[in-house]
Amino acid sequence: MTIETKYSNIPSIDAEMGKKVFNYIQTLTKPVGSLGRLEELAVQLGEITSNPFPTVTPPGILVFAADHGVAVEGVSAYPKEVTAQMVLNFLGGGAGINVFGRQIGAIQRVIDIGVASDIEEPGVIQKKVRYGTGNFLVEEAMTRNEVEQALEIGFSQCEEVIQEGAKCIILGELGIGNTTTSSAMLAALNGVDSVGDLIGRGTGISDEKLLLKQQVIEKALAERKPNPSDPIDVLSKVGGLEIAGMAGAMLAAAQNRVPILVDGFISTISALVAKAINPAAGDYMIVGHRSAEPGHLLALQLLEKQPLIDLGMRLGEGTGAAVAFPILQSATLMIKEMATFESAGVSSKE
Amino acid sequence: MTIETKYSNIPSIDAEMGKKVFNYIQTLTKPVGSLGRLEELAVQLGEITSNPFPTVTPPGILVFAADHGVAVEGVSAYPKEVTAQMVLNFLGGGAGINVFGRQIGAIQRVIDIGVASDIEEPGVIQKKVRYGTGNFLVEEAMTRNEVEQALEIGFSQCEEVIQEGAKCIILGELGIGNTTTSSAMLAALNGVDSVGDLIGRGTGISDEKLLLKQQVIEKALAERKPNPSDPIDVLSKVGGLEIAGMAGAMLAAAQNRVPILVDGFISTISALVAKAINPAAGDYMIVGHRSAEPGHLLALQLLEKQPLIDLGMRLGEGTGAAVAFPILQSATLMIKEMATFESAGVSSKE
Repeated sequence: MTIETKYSNIPSIDAEMGKKVFNYIQTLTKPVGSLGRLEELAVQLGEITSNPFPTVTPPGILVFAADHGVAVEGVSAYPKEVTAQMVLNFLGGGAGINVFGRQIGAIQRVIDIGVASDIEEPGVIQKKVRYGTGNFLVEEAMTRNEVEQALEIGFSQCEEVIQEGAKCIILGELGIGNTTTSSAMLAALNGVDSVGDLIGRGTGISDEKLLLKQQVIEKALAERKPNPSDPIDVLSKVGGLEIAGMAGAMLAAAQNRVPILVDGFISTISALVAKAINPAAGDYMIVGHRSAEPGHLLALQLLEKQPLIDLGMRLGEGTGAAVAFPILQSATLMIKEMATFESAGVSSKE
Repeated sequence: MTIETKYSNIPSIDAEMGKKVFNYIQTLTKPVGSLGRLEELAVQLGEITSNPFPTVTPPGILVFAADHGVAVEGVSAYPKEVTAQMVLNFLGGGAGINVFGRQIGAIQRVIDIGVASDIEEPGVIQKKVRYGTGNFLVEEAMTRNEVEQALEIGFSQCEEVIQEGAKCIILGELGIGNTTTSSAMLAALNGVDSVGDLIGRGTGISDEKLLLKQQVIEKALAERKPNPSDPIDVLSKVGGLEIAGMAGAMLAAAQNRVPILVDGFISTISALVAKAINPAAGDYMIVGHRSAEPGHLLALQLLEKQPLIDLGMRLGEGTGAAVAFPILQSATLMIKEMATFESAGVSSKE
């Protein structure tokens, strides 16, 4: 079975329900159109969920952790060990995503899909495909079969969280080196081999490291020659295990008519992969925030989405989406709780 | 006692505490600066509250309702009766601000500071200064004494809500015609007599009414001649009772070191008034959202603030600030709950 066939079961969105929600919004006690983007979100959530009063609570946050072989090239500001240390920080509840996840009442999971060391702590979901990817400067990041395993793990983890009751899915990642991987994937998916405009300082590298990062990516693209029209090839040659896992999770959310709140740069690359596997997945996505990472702008253009907030964030882990989530919730509460002109006895427009 | 003397007791913000908060943020388990605007907000909240772990919950929402004499000129899409009807809708919990206020766990109050009819329902706080303002096309909106009464009502209402425990203040308004009043005030405060670029469709008027709105405002400014350097004169000649009330409330919040989350166009005009009365009040303000109302851009420039969100909203009532509020809360939870590199045993930058 091809990947496209395996993930072909995404229903069309319910355009009729979108119209119903739109018409209902016109009856609420407020000037027409005066809640702007909240009204558009409410319509989109109606289309996605096929529910006239959609709900997004509780959200489910799945954080996928994996290491990147390319980190040995010195492209990150932090040592590789930080990936595993941040998984432990997540389990202790002290990572940024834990804080913002608690704020929004989320179901939270962390999945080891490819950390380079064993993490024995209870709480982490053990789904390691391999001990980090290969260094794509000198070899393929992983095999096609490993990509497919990672997609499948993401898919089934997301289905479990939906079973637990999650009504909106946020994907996050932990992986030192993953802005390098994401920049390489973005260039590959876009069919370009120059990445000067796409790369940024990730977790905060120097000018010198930034140049190195660019050189590493461009050399890797020239050597690995990923096929822009084959997302599995791109993931296999210059991808990351957590990026594949997040893409699989997005496909599961779409198949189950659950809205996906996309986070920043790396999450948007996963979204592009999911959409390349099944274009219908794009209809289930809302982008939470605009990342300060330069490549995010192009990634958003390719995804054809406008983010909800723009606060200069670039932490990853799903934090931008979690911080933006209350806006989605506001859109649903608007439909559910606002009075209509008729119910409130308010005069309509003259 | 002059107004400036009466409202002179606003303390300086605590710059030292801001530095302490800034330094503490550098120890949290995230790349330096990677939470962008959240980090700036946390520092500002430290400066405002003089607390190393500031809190903004529960917020307090005060909605001031008043009528505008100028509404008889046909500058609004809705009949004047809607002001009173919307007060009743608020009391029933069905207005937009009720919905978003409940979402953020706010203490909510509605104050009749100048509705043109009597509202007998329990729940509304009766502080009517007069039955709506005069039509400023033909007479002054109100006397200087009435402006001072409205400021004082706003001040004491806000102090009561702070006594009840409010840790952040959101001001909202209900008042058919109040974008016309606010546009006139903005032009007056800015010393200009042409308002073509400043006015918008408010609650949704036609092209014809938009031209009428412009003509009414420009004629009123020429006839009333408000003094740009005297905010009480501007309020008296072309202002609104709810706009004065909100300004008074902002002065109380600043005096009590409680952050003010400014809403959209009308709320920003109140903020300009409060800042004109005591410039120190500006340091206690954060702007929640950018309104779709055209004049808001200039008003924000005059206030020298950048809004947190930009979602094309223009409902008023405080709704934009309420929808933006969770971002402020995220900033406080970041400081309070994130682990430090040391506490979590995470390696620092290489």
